[in-house]
Amino acid sequence: MTPPSTPLVPATLLRDGDATLAAQLAARYGERIEQQLLAPGARLPSVRECARRHAVSPSTVVAAYDQLAAQGLVEARPQRGFFVRGPRTGPRPRPSTSAAAGAGRPDAPRIRPTDAPAMIRGMFHGVGRPGPGMGTLPPDWLDLPLLHGAMRRAMAGDDSALRYGDPAGDPRFRTAFVQRLADIGIGATPAHLLTTMGATHALDIVSRTLTQPGDAVLVDEPGWPIEFARLARLGLRVLTVPRGAQGPDLDVMRALAEAHRPRLYITVSVLHNPTGALLSLAAAHQVLKLAETFDFTIVEDDTYAYLAPPHAPRLSALDNLQRSVYLTGFSKIITPNWRVGCIAAAPALAERLIDTKLLGMLSTPTAPERALAVTLEQGTLRRHAERIGHRLETARLRTQRLAQEAGFHFVAPPQGLFGWVDAGVDTERLSEAMLDQGWLLAPGTLFHAVPRPTTLMRVNFATSQDGRLWDTLQKVRAAL
Amino acid sequence: MTPPSTPLVPATLLRDGDATLAAQLAARYGERIEQQLLAPGARLPSVRECARRHAVSPSTVVAAYDQLAAQGLVEARPQRGFFVRGPRTGPRPRPSTSAAAGAGRPDAPRIRPTDAPAMIRGMFHGVGRPGPGMGTLPPDWLDLPLLHGAMRRAMAGDDSALRYGDPAGDPRFRTAFVQRLADIGIGATPAHLLTTMGATHALDIVSRTLTQPGDAVLVDEPGWPIEFARLARLGLRVLTVPRGAQGPDLDVMRALAEAHRPRLYITVSVLHNPTGALLSLAAAHQVLKLAETFDFTIVEDDTYAYLAPPHAPRLSALDNLQRSVYLTGFSKIITPNWRVGCIAAAPALAERLIDTKLLGMLSTPTAPERALAVTLEQGTLRRHAERIGHRLETARLRTQRLAQEAGFHFVAPPQGLFGWVDAGVDTERLSEAMLDQGWLLAPGTLFHAVPRPTTLMRVNFATSQDGRLWDTLQKVRAAL
Repeated sequence: MTPPSTPLVPATLLRDGDATLAAQLAARYGERIEQQLLAPGARLPSVRECARRHAVSPSTVVAAYDQLAAQGLVEARPQRGFFVRGPRTGPRPRPSTSAAAGAGRPDAPRIRPTDAPAMIRGMFHGVGRPGPGMGTLPPDWLDLPLLHGAMRRAMAGDDSALRYGDPAGDPRFRTAFVQRLADIGIGATPAHLLTTMGATHALDIVSRTLTQPGDAVLVDEPGWPIEFARLARLGLRVLTVPRGAQGPDLDVMRALAEAHRPRLYITVSVLHNPTGALLSLAAAHQVLKLAETFDFTIVEDDTYAYLAPPHAPRLSALDNLQRSVYLTGFSKIITPNWRVGCIAAAPALAERLIDTKLLGMLSTPTAPERALAVTLEQGTLRRHAERIGHRLETARLRTQRLAQEAGFHFVAPPQGLFGWVDAGVDTERLSEAMLDQGWLLAPGTLFHAVPRPTTLMRVNFATSQDGRLWDTLQKVRAAL
Repeated sequence: MTPPSTPLVPATLLRDGDATLAAQLAARYGERIEQQLLAPGARLPSVRECARRHAVSPSTVVAAYDQLAAQGLVEARPQRGFFVRGPRTGPRPRPSTSAAAGAGRPDAPRIRPTDAPAMIRGMFHGVGRPGPGMGTLPPDWLDLPLLHGAMRRAMAGDDSALRYGDPAGDPRFRTAFVQRLADIGIGATPAHLLTTMGATHALDIVSRTLTQPGDAVLVDEPGWPIEFARLARLGLRVLTVPRGAQGPDLDVMRALAEAHRPRLYITVSVLHNPTGALLSLAAAHQVLKLAETFDFTIVEDDTYAYLAPPHAPRLSALDNLQRSVYLTGFSKIITPNWRVGCIAAAPALAERLIDTKLLGMLSTPTAPERALAVTLEQGTLRRHAERIGHRLETARLRTQRLAQEAGFHFVAPPQGLFGWVDAGVDTERLSEAMLDQGWLLAPGTLFHAVPRPTTLMRVNFATSQDGRLWDTLQKVRAAL
């Protein structure tokens, strides 16, 4: 069992503290704004609602909000309420070309790159916190001695620190990873591979190599918000394809591909974030046929590879890396901090990807790649992944039972790290109210390219096993 | 004294070997093309010159070139000779907007992003080789026990591997680096700083944050070719400013700024690569005034910081990080492989830079940053840099004497790691002929945004102390 999460802030204001109630309330909201848990542009609760929630008088709330305004953290908008101010000047707007390219066409959501990083920084801040909103395995599930041991073995007698690494990445790692890819059905050689600083960096390298500003790209929705924001910042037109339990909505995909001639389809095919869905074999085949018809490249992000059920099919295995690029990382299984990722692509494309990597950072550090090679060669990573798999299965069963007892409903079959849960109420409001109780949720709106109200939320099975979480969720939901 | 460099290929063909002379010759050129020491588009020596150089008959050369053509490595162009073929499809051309924006204006060189990465990969491959063309300190000057010791101390009792790092970088590193910046006159706090994967990644983050495709940027010429190529790949218009012994040509800078309204001026102010020049105080003041008048940001790349004479002025120190962004790395002093760099900028801008870093790779690994913090805190990096400084001074004096005795002339006062040397003959031809003798040079043409013939070359003081190098240079030059 996981220990209970530490509440982020005390749940109640101190009536006998040194600070006034208004000052305490202002400090609490100020802290959330500083930590970007409340994003720029977000509306504070109405005076009436805030007063009810904290059991203070409306005049105390007004005094607190006025203090925040005086600190420059929020601004009052007449008739509308108080809003979080942007902490800084946003980036300059994209040049008119890319904006114009998207305008007037249907189905191209307007992602504002100005807002996204602030929101994401808040979320990134949040994903590291224990609790249902967490985006990784909890640190105490990971194996620090395994990591330190592998690093020590990699460093022993090794002088790679004295020179730049191979721009393609450590040859020993690439050789070891070829075997791992073979295990999941992907035939590759070291010449197919290049290392990256994790999966996000891999996605960045691939999209910088294969697109130009103004190009259209297909992405699953719901999806990973950093991906939406990253693509928008590259000046790309982000076209979202609804992702169902079997795969993307093929009719929508065909219509978008026909209308916009996208360059890429970027997808987490196995254990999709946030729904946990697996791409079916039949859908995989159809997606590959569409890619062929409309001449786009499939970018398969296999971030959750080590948590996947055996024999989950990869697009890159069906396609043999002809129209597909495979990428993955190790953040979700062994360590989020070494920042090792890997891309597999047809060798000619791999060469171009290496050029992009080289121009952006020359090369990646050898030591963590070599240390991961040690865990691959010795089978310690595989055994660690098996242990995690068993533990996660237990956690999933327990979380599932607790959620269902509390009246929360899974809209996708629970598998992998994340459950996609219907709370029956707007999860953004639920989220904010739960923050008062010290719990950080991941409301469904986060996973949309353009924020929208939804009753869905993502739940991390590993960090949602505390019965008090579900009791609190039940109570807070009832009070909304 | 440095040990002699290992020749890259045997200097002479084997007359009694198993392979024919033509096959040996083809293999030799084939290897250089594979290693990209001969870039796509490069012309092979004429049949006559090649025959003379290798003391074989012209028909042997023709047979060798035919073998290379049959292997798809070179192509014959009627009346013009044999040319290296591109090993792969280049990136698609930039969209017409940025190309059109540069066309018709004077002074905007046409950098072809298609060619640059291949050339640079060859060069990057080359910079790691010992010899006068090397771009770093030789590995045996670095201190592996210092590196491993710092890494072990950083890892001891540390569990940062279990979670994502702070997107701004390790707080302990940033705190230690504030003191280092104070030592060179730059006032900063941890809130000014973010870490990167080395200086190139820092330049990438800054230019992705502050420019849009089609924007103009000023860069010193001669300069670092990866920088030219990186900026061209971002779709920027690269405007080159001649760099002299005191600093950039201010008249040219003013004229370009007036005509093109650049967003950035990117400069290695201290120990400029390749000339080794230091920016004078007076020039620094004028550059800052131009930045103010024409509203551009100065990006000060201080890659050679630890090799610089004490009290070399930094633009960022004069300007107090108002119109300037400072960045540096540790590749040229302690290790090229840990890939730790740092940016210092006004806090509001630092926040935007962190967003760009986050969208491109989430965060950087903590362990190497923490290990560098140890070397900063304990003074071991400073003492190592002092030892390197003394050793480099000795190397500089010896190399200078050997070069002058061999009739090579320094066009800039020798300081730092690199000398800028006039060979009196075209250094690209000299370079190719020296490759036959097993020595890799860095001909001046590499350091121009658009390749041009020049008699200048860059010499690494640390790796050019072998008398045989200068004897060979003298003989090869005489034979050209």
